[in-house]
Amino acid sequence: MVASVQAIRVNTAPPYEVLTGRGLLSRIGPFLRQIHATQALVVTSRRVSTLHGSKLKGALKGYRSAWIELPDGERVKDMRTLDRVLQQFARAGADRGSCVIAFGGGSIGDLAGFAASVYMRGIPVVQVPTTLLAQVDASVGGKTAINLGSAKNLVGTFHQPAIVVSDTSVLKTLSDRDFRAGLFEVIKCGAICDPEFFSWCEQSAPKMLTRDPAAIERIVTAAIRIKAEIVSADPTERGLRRILNFGHTIGHALEAAGGYRTLLHGEAVALGMIAAAEIGVNMDITSPEVAERLISCVLQFGPLPKAKFSTSMVMRSLGSDKKSVSGRPHFVLLDKLGSTVIRSDVPDDLIRHAIRSVTT
Amino acid sequence: MVASVQAIRVNTAPPYEVLTGRGLLSRIGPFLRQIHATQALVVTSRRVSTLHGSKLKGALKGYRSAWIELPDGERVKDMRTLDRVLQQFARAGADRGSCVIAFGGGSIGDLAGFAASVYMRGIPVVQVPTTLLAQVDASVGGKTAINLGSAKNLVGTFHQPAIVVSDTSVLKTLSDRDFRAGLFEVIKCGAICDPEFFSWCEQSAPKMLTRDPAAIERIVTAAIRIKAEIVSADPTERGLRRILNFGHTIGHALEAAGGYRTLLHGEAVALGMIAAAEIGVNMDITSPEVAERLISCVLQFGPLPKAKFSTSMVMRSLGSDKKSVSGRPHFVLLDKLGSTVIRSDVPDDLIRHAIRSVTT
Repeated sequence: MVASVQAIRVNTAPPYEVLTGRGLLSRIGPFLRQIHATQALVVTSRRVSTLHGSKLKGALKGYRSAWIELPDGERVKDMRTLDRVLQQFARAGADRGSCVIAFGGGSIGDLAGFAASVYMRGIPVVQVPTTLLAQVDASVGGKTAINLGSAKNLVGTFHQPAIVVSDTSVLKTLSDRDFRAGLFEVIKCGAICDPEFFSWCEQSAPKMLTRDPAAIERIVTAAIRIKAEIVSADPTERGLRRILNFGHTIGHALEAAGGYRTLLHGEAVALGMIAAAEIGVNMDITSPEVAERLISCVLQFGPLPKAKFSTSMVMRSLGSDKKSVSGRPHFVLLDKLGSTVIRSDVPDDLIRHAIRSVTT
Repeated sequence: MVASVQAIRVNTAPPYEVLTGRGLLSRIGPFLRQIHATQALVVTSRRVSTLHGSKLKGALKGYRSAWIELPDGERVKDMRTLDRVLQQFARAGADRGSCVIAFGGGSIGDLAGFAASVYMRGIPVVQVPTTLLAQVDASVGGKTAINLGSAKNLVGTFHQPAIVVSDTSVLKTLSDRDFRAGLFEVIKCGAICDPEFFSWCEQSAPKMLTRDPAAIERIVTAAIRIKAEIVSADPTERGLRRILNFGHTIGHALEAAGGYRTLLHGEAVALGMIAAAEIGVNMDITSPEVAERLISCVLQFGPLPKAKFSTSMVMRSLGSDKKSVSGRPHFVLLDKLGSTVIRSDVPDDLIRHAIRSVTT
């Protein structure tokens, strides 16, 4: 099958391309040659390896490569696994001509990207995301991370990938819950940057939820285009890039309060967007109509799990967020659809009120 | 005492300054304000803390700060200590307004620099080197590292310091052996870049060895100037910067063969420069006269410890150096004083011959 490929350029230094399309996994060989890699160090999870490993292995035939399989989920993002992966790179004889292939969801991308960024002070990483969330968000932009105890993503680097290869056909094996969690980041992109795309999402929920292939390609490319534009302007999050954190301030705090077991990242962001809409209205920044449209759109992609946390628990997590400086959290708020402001002066009682609106 | 301060600029993006002079340690407060640090996370070793800690503590009075004391020596450069240091940053409430102060020799600089580069994806580091080797070499240029098992510096980042503060008055507490080890890196700078400074070193050995304050200031500023110029042109070692590895190819292999316990880094580089002179002569690149001058100059700062390794042991270490690509080691060779060529085609028998000339 020769499917169409979309190439989206990210203008960092050096620039790189995000390729999306159906069936790209089996055609990865030429992309590795393009970046002059002499060895592929594949870092993947058990589940992804079982579901899609044979396709990638086939595509790497004739390539010097190592296959490093890790447990599924967020727990790979720790110092011990990092150490183990780096030792496996060394044992495989990896040198500065080698490249890492991060083949999996966001956790694999974060860990493998971090390992690549510090092995021999940095070797290239090719991101090959296999979840919707990773395709529309995590794989683009070069953020890498591990957790430090309970502090999520406290340790990491900015390490832009050499190339991102997003094969949309792998998304059909995702669970409904994982797929829907990814959609919330898609809605976020529309809400902060692209009102027309947001309207399309409002109207296309049924097609999106049934994973219509054309709808999937539209949402993946639209979300990547928005993210690529923002990252190009601000690769290390000194200004503009912070708007991508819409829904993430309270979202991260909810994830932390649940020990990262109760809510998926996308679900936490969904609740965080609802909370940010509340705050926006109460700060007279977001109109009630915009808040209403945002919340209705989010709820179309529900159900959202109950977030059973006390307000004070969530407030505590908020205080330890790494985006706060001198203890004040920053909020991205909508002043209209497609346009945001960043505020660090939200009064505590409004924050508490917003938390209560999304917890039980 | 108001001593003179020399400021040398390193033109990376962003640029930074290396300050050298006597008594700078007690005047560090204004430099921290200059980089807008709201908290100082001092990472140091027991020995340095005992010898010079009170001066730095005095200078930090009124500053929010944490004091993290580690064991002495290279063993701090491992994943476990990195993890511990990062956890101490978190416990101290460090955020993106904090800065790390790397207060010690090369090992502390490498570890603390690495920790700073990955905490919250990078916070500033101020290098405050306390050995001659660290002042003339390691603290400038942004290389950070830890070891991975027996593989030295296999993991790290490029993270340029916000500022380097080199107080030359602390050098008087160094042991003779540590001081002499630092001098070999100084000679190296002259040999690869500055024939006039090399001649001055040839003639000034007695003053250098007795640590005449004026001579110390001359060698520290001269070596930093040379390094700053090279790093400015090539911050991430893609080309020119590799000339700084003169003496390091066989030097690193000798260090590794001794399990990093037999030779100090500077001593290994001294032996490596002698070996590189041998290879240079046998490749018809270095004239016998230049080789002779280099070797005599090195030996003036002896005695060098015996390197009791078999040639095959050293050859094995050579193969796993991270600068080799596809297994071929690179050699920096002198074509005349102040000028180098880089060769990856040195035949194995010439390498073995050179190793034999510096081992017993």
